[in-house]
Amino acid sequence: MPHFRATITVMLRSSILDVQGKTVEHALHALGFTAVENVRIGKHITLELYAESHDAAIEQCHQMSQQLLANTIIEDYSIIVEPSQQ
Amino acid sequence: MPHFRATITVMLRSSILDVQGKTVEHALHALGFTAVENVRIGKHITLELYAESHDAAIEQCHQMSQQLLANTIIEDYSIIVEPSQQ
Repeated sequence: MPHFRATITVMLRSSILDVQGKTVEHALHALGFTAVENVRIGKHITLELYAESHDAAIEQCHQMSQQLLANTIIEDYSIIVEPSQQ
Repeated sequence: MPHFRATITVMLRSSILDVQGKTVEHALHALGFTAVENVRIGKHITLELYAESHDAAIEQCHQMSQQLLANTIIEDYSIIVEPSQQ
């Protein structure tokens, strides 16, 4: 079965205050990086999977995101799937 | 001064055991996603900044990563900077 590498990025929705991002932004300002703004911090998830096709791999990633990886009430996610060399 | 959007991805080095990733991998298997392996979880940081040039923006992101965003003893980071519409 074909092997794929997937990257799933999970970020708080833009309407939700990102407290971790704000804290890091203040720390960056304190370090002298005063030209920085709108810092937001999410999760970058990489994984490998076997699937019948590229479309099936993307569908699996959607299912995994909705069931476990993202809290879709407050988070958005994006998926990139590419064929693996393996 | 030009305005840029930056994305900084921070991941544990591949030689370091990713306990969070392993835990999520086991949870995915338990949910029936048995074709998934090598799950790793890092940080996806987005920010905006003002800089003299594209190169200067990348250099600022390197400095921020090394001073605050990444623990370079155990983590690798990658930087993408693109011009902002603003």
